[in-house]
Amino acid sequence: MAIQIPRGTQDILPGEVEKWQLIEETAKEICRKYQYQEIRTPIFEQTELFLRGVGDTTDIVQKEMYTFEDRGGRSLTLRPEGTAAVVRSFAENKMYGGANQPVKLYYLGPMFRYERPQAGRYRQFVQFGIEALGSMDPAIDAEVISLAMELYKALGLKKLRLVINSLGDSESRTAHRNALINHFQPRIDEFCGDCQNRLEKNPLRILDCKKDHNHELMKTAPSILEYLNEDSRLYFEKVKQYLSAMEIDYVVDSTLVRGLDYYNHTAFEIMSEAEGFGAITTLCGGGRYNGLVREMGGPDTPGIGFALSVERLISAMDAEGVDLQSEKKIDCFIVALGEEARDHSVILLQNLRHAGFSAERDYLERKIKAQFKAAERLGANFAIIIGEDELKSGVAAVKNLETGEQKELTLNNFVKEFSMLSQ
Amino acid sequence: MAIQIPRGTQDILPGEVEKWQLIEETAKEICRKYQYQEIRTPIFEQTELFLRGVGDTTDIVQKEMYTFEDRGGRSLTLRPEGTAAVVRSFAENKMYGGANQPVKLYYLGPMFRYERPQAGRYRQFVQFGIEALGSMDPAIDAEVISLAMELYKALGLKKLRLVINSLGDSESRTAHRNALINHFQPRIDEFCGDCQNRLEKNPLRILDCKKDHNHELMKTAPSILEYLNEDSRLYFEKVKQYLSAMEIDYVVDSTLVRGLDYYNHTAFEIMSEAEGFGAITTLCGGGRYNGLVREMGGPDTPGIGFALSVERLISAMDAEGVDLQSEKKIDCFIVALGEEARDHSVILLQNLRHAGFSAERDYLERKIKAQFKAAERLGANFAIIIGEDELKSGVAAVKNLETGEQKELTLNNFVKEFSMLSQ
Repeated sequence: MAIQIPRGTQDILPGEVEKWQLIEETAKEICRKYQYQEIRTPIFEQTELFLRGVGDTTDIVQKEMYTFEDRGGRSLTLRPEGTAAVVRSFAENKMYGGANQPVKLYYLGPMFRYERPQAGRYRQFVQFGIEALGSMDPAIDAEVISLAMELYKALGLKKLRLVINSLGDSESRTAHRNALINHFQPRIDEFCGDCQNRLEKNPLRILDCKKDHNHELMKTAPSILEYLNEDSRLYFEKVKQYLSAMEIDYVVDSTLVRGLDYYNHTAFEIMSEAEGFGAITTLCGGGRYNGLVREMGGPDTPGIGFALSVERLISAMDAEGVDLQSEKKIDCFIVALGEEARDHSVILLQNLRHAGFSAERDYLERKIKAQFKAAERLGANFAIIIGEDELKSGVAAVKNLETGEQKELTLNNFVKEFSMLSQ
Repeated sequence: MAIQIPRGTQDILPGEVEKWQLIEETAKEICRKYQYQEIRTPIFEQTELFLRGVGDTTDIVQKEMYTFEDRGGRSLTLRPEGTAAVVRSFAENKMYGGANQPVKLYYLGPMFRYERPQAGRYRQFVQFGIEALGSMDPAIDAEVISLAMELYKALGLKKLRLVINSLGDSESRTAHRNALINHFQPRIDEFCGDCQNRLEKNPLRILDCKKDHNHELMKTAPSILEYLNEDSRLYFEKVKQYLSAMEIDYVVDSTLVRGLDYYNHTAFEIMSEAEGFGAITTLCGGGRYNGLVREMGGPDTPGIGFALSVERLISAMDAEGVDLQSEKKIDCFIVALGEEARDHSVILLQNLRHAGFSAERDYLERKIKAQFKAAERLGANFAIIIGEDELKSGVAAVKNLETGEQKELTLNNFVKEFSMLSQ
């Protein structure tokens, strides 16, 4: 009996993996230009990290985490997102004390959520994200947004919609929170049980409710933007000014909120507007979280970042008909006839590879015709043909598989002559 | 209270991560030349996969796996090694039916074993491995070994020892097995309980026993090499001949065995002989496993591969004093004075990055001297200085931080002029 892949996960095979490699290389190259450096944290963390960093009232923590005990009885959880661990590492490794500030980091790797598998949704998925820790300059908010937009554009996406909002500082949030309570309290019994619980605990999350989102009070709910104090308003103005200066289009949507207490100021999402992309259009979400480092046991440090799913990015590329995969070619394929030639091809192959060529030979004792077929299938630029006669004369025939042109090169000096020929 | 990283795991931070990136890029480049393509399988698999693929009597399966139930009651296990999942994927995706044979794959990613943490040993560690499926040509055995050796050499390791052996085909193994039983049976009561169990089940594993390895019968145990039949002997001869032709030094050690039934023919290990590397010197282990694909529910398909730990590779590099890290530099740092110049620097920064430069600015409202210091710390080649006067005249001063030379470039045409200057 064959054993199958776990439900909700996928293998990424040759033919498909090249797209992933290209996306990752593009992200890394943009991070180099923007000076974000890679950080790698473990696949699992102490469960408490996510209770605290993601929030113990969120769906992620309540329903979607892969939590288990290790053989030492510790509760561990496969990371459902990247920010909590990066901030944990920032605090634990005292990166706030380093000479280069702010600390600008990126991560790229698998995350895990136990969700109902559906098209484009996997229980293991890959996130790319960045975090800038230590600066309260609105220019860095704009930079973070700009980096995400640049990645999407570099990968050929055109139908993008950037939505931004400000959640203000804690004074502004408190004022807004009180306004929300006053707004919903008189008619809270018309809302679901979850919303009734949220009223005192976190009324902002009522605006996120999937059950009640059509209730008339939702439309008339007080907007955070009306409650921003002067500092918060000016901060938001600067972010918008910088985005405009960078010619990055955006729309302001005051209903874009983040439920957790340590989020503040800038919040943003990037959506795909490609037709047929499906109901969930969000590609990327990010924002400022000035309270999180302290929550994780570090000193008070401002932070901002985003996370995006590579799976959803690929779906958006598919929806827009972007195909960036370059044709795959190899430099040469050795067609060897007879045992002696096959033996000799081992050395020739190694010499070619050591010189930097991608080179292949037959490993199935195929006949000459089948070897040429294999060379074609691999997209080889050249076939190198050796048989008994060639070995005796100390030469190999080299055939350009595109033009059909054929030449003899001496075996003793083969790599050098081949390098010149194939230039 | 700060939450700490899970025991036995590590964060890889900027400053250290560059070494990992370099190793991975080197491995990928060698795989391109050798025509191994990447495959990515999930971080966890159904537990049964490893019971079957790694073997339910091994230490890995019995003591070291991270096994847990998901919310749907399925038993899942964080992968302790890479081969079982690659073979699972090969069978499940019917890769044996593809046009390009053999199928040559590589993987690179985290593996998990609950071991006692110690120097250089982590519970999460990174493995790089390759698998060649579908060929019974001894040249591919030599290729697999050659690829591993090339990686180590490309990364600067010199003190390497390649040990090879042959386990023969199943006829040879049966003959050897009977000889082992005859050898140990008369005095098996002098051995540990584990060995007594192994005698009938898998006497080859007695040779691996850590408790009894000094027993006198160990030294006189019959060697597999004496029991190779003609086919197996010829196969091994060819592998050795190819290694010699490729000028890869090796020693034959008939005590190098693999306990599981589906291993056969070529087995190899690469050790570090660097002084001070520690007691466990194995860097890489590999071999042929012609029975594994069938064991996993696929058709009978020969296979060979290896796996190596990147952590141990780095330890060996450290032990040999190899330091391949290149000096990190950025192209330019913008020193901006005053609010207007700071605002303008946002656009300038973006233009520079879009043109491919790695560029940075200050995000902490630092004074001019501190901004220059930051530029130096980042190894910037150029400082770009803008203040009120410069903005008024439509210029920026560009200072070569190595030579001290300074020039004025026009802001309107800045990126173009800077590109020429910095060539």
